[in-house]
Amino acid sequence: MSSKPISVLITGANRGLGLEMVKQMVETQGPLSVLFACCRDPDGPRAEGLRALAKKHPDIIKIIRLDAADPNSIKQAAQQVASVVGKSGLNIIINNGAMACLSTVLESTPEEMNKCFSTNTVGPLVIIQEFISLLRAAAKNSGTPGMSFRKAAVINITAILGSITVAKETFTKSLPHRVSKAALNMMLVCASVELQKDDIFCMLLHPGWVRTDMGGPQGEIDVHESVEGMLKLMNSLTEKQNGALLNWKGETVPW
Amino acid sequence: MSSKPISVLITGANRGLGLEMVKQMVETQGPLSVLFACCRDPDGPRAEGLRALAKKHPDIIKIIRLDAADPNSIKQAAQQVASVVGKSGLNIIINNGAMACLSTVLESTPEEMNKCFSTNTVGPLVIIQEFISLLRAAAKNSGTPGMSFRKAAVINITAILGSITVAKETFTKSLPHRVSKAALNMMLVCASVELQKDDIFCMLLHPGWVRTDMGGPQGEIDVHESVEGMLKLMNSLTEKQNGALLNWKGETVPW
Repeated sequence: MSSKPISVLITGANRGLGLEMVKQMVETQGPLSVLFACCRDPDGPRAEGLRALAKKHPDIIKIIRLDAADPNSIKQAAQQVASVVGKSGLNIIINNGAMACLSTVLESTPEEMNKCFSTNTVGPLVIIQEFISLLRAAAKNSGTPGMSFRKAAVINITAILGSITVAKETFTKSLPHRVSKAALNMMLVCASVELQKDDIFCMLLHPGWVRTDMGGPQGEIDVHESVEGMLKLMNSLTEKQNGALLNWKGETVPW
Repeated sequence: MSSKPISVLITGANRGLGLEMVKQMVETQGPLSVLFACCRDPDGPRAEGLRALAKKHPDIIKIIRLDAADPNSIKQAAQQVASVVGKSGLNIIINNGAMACLSTVLESTPEEMNKCFSTNTVGPLVIIQEFISLLRAAAKNSGTPGMSFRKAAVINITAILGSITVAKETFTKSLPHRVSKAALNMMLVCASVELQKDDIFCMLLHPGWVRTDMGGPQGEIDVHESVEGMLKLMNSLTEKQNGALLNWKGETVPW
């Protein structure tokens, strides 16, 4: 692991995978200069765990309001981050925030489709756009050639539900979610090509079927195991994995 | 080819692939009881060719207004179709209408993303929802077991641009279009699972890179060749291809 402190931003950081990622990042993945833990409602009851964690690491964790469905909120978050990191830029964005929507093909309304798409697909796109100058600054300041996770990276947490290849085998009542994740996968692959010239690494991670509020109690692994696997994987990423979709164990997930 | 007359609906029927499909359907794919040729502005200058064709086949071709981006217009179109076909139902929907949007990852606005998604992904979903009872009626009335194109089918024209697998090799300035087509692919695969119990066949077709207004003059094949290939393929479809993505030559396109 590099000894140069890095800056990290995580969305959906108030619970589940996001909160565990903040915890493990701060406690085992150092050194960090700053970790921006983003969520929609930092002052609400659902961010209690995050506020407690931030209290334990006041020099590292900064809680920031960010609603992926609202481009203005993303812009404001980017301004706040810029005012903290300045010319050093931002090394890593982990887009973990997402919404699920349980609905069949015949039942899904245009409103449900659009809401999931705005949050899960357009949100991560706008995040790339609003933070691009900070990512570019971090890439330039690293002083090392090529791409790597700790230099400048956008990691999107996606879901096996977004894999078209296995959709027939894993069919569940979740059309808007599935569609938004397949769309997210395409967006990020395009970003991995477009941002390559700036040495900004982009990839997708499937966390496994995790026992969270979203994954439900039948999940195959717990949050700790999933995040531990993903962080180990992230630190081992090389240019070869730019634009890839891997699961928490490092296995390729089909599109 | 079956001798039982079938009913067909084609969207984006006023030009390019859609217009050629109407032409070849009427002239070589008979017998048809009725062909609903749908477009956004049936009375406008861009539907002149379609109006001329309809004049030649007044007993078969019915021109109907349908804007895939507007759920109300889809509902109205379904009511019009129902009033013509009655209890016989509708055998085939060919969703050919789509919009392109040329924009990069860093330039694409939420508005462009949402507009492409509404037209190219949500539109075909709402079409399935609004026409489902007519498709079910056609499937029941066919009197034959299993699935086939001429019994009850939803065929979505997609694009190689929607293939995530080849996105890195075919990278072009068209993020909103690409994302909406990957999303469409997922939607239709889910539909192919959900509608299987009703014997409604669903699949995706890549028409090739065709010399149309959308494909541009550098396209590899002309409209006639593409449509001829697709219609030949459609007539040969069996249950095995339910939920598949094939090109105009019948080759599997990766997701």
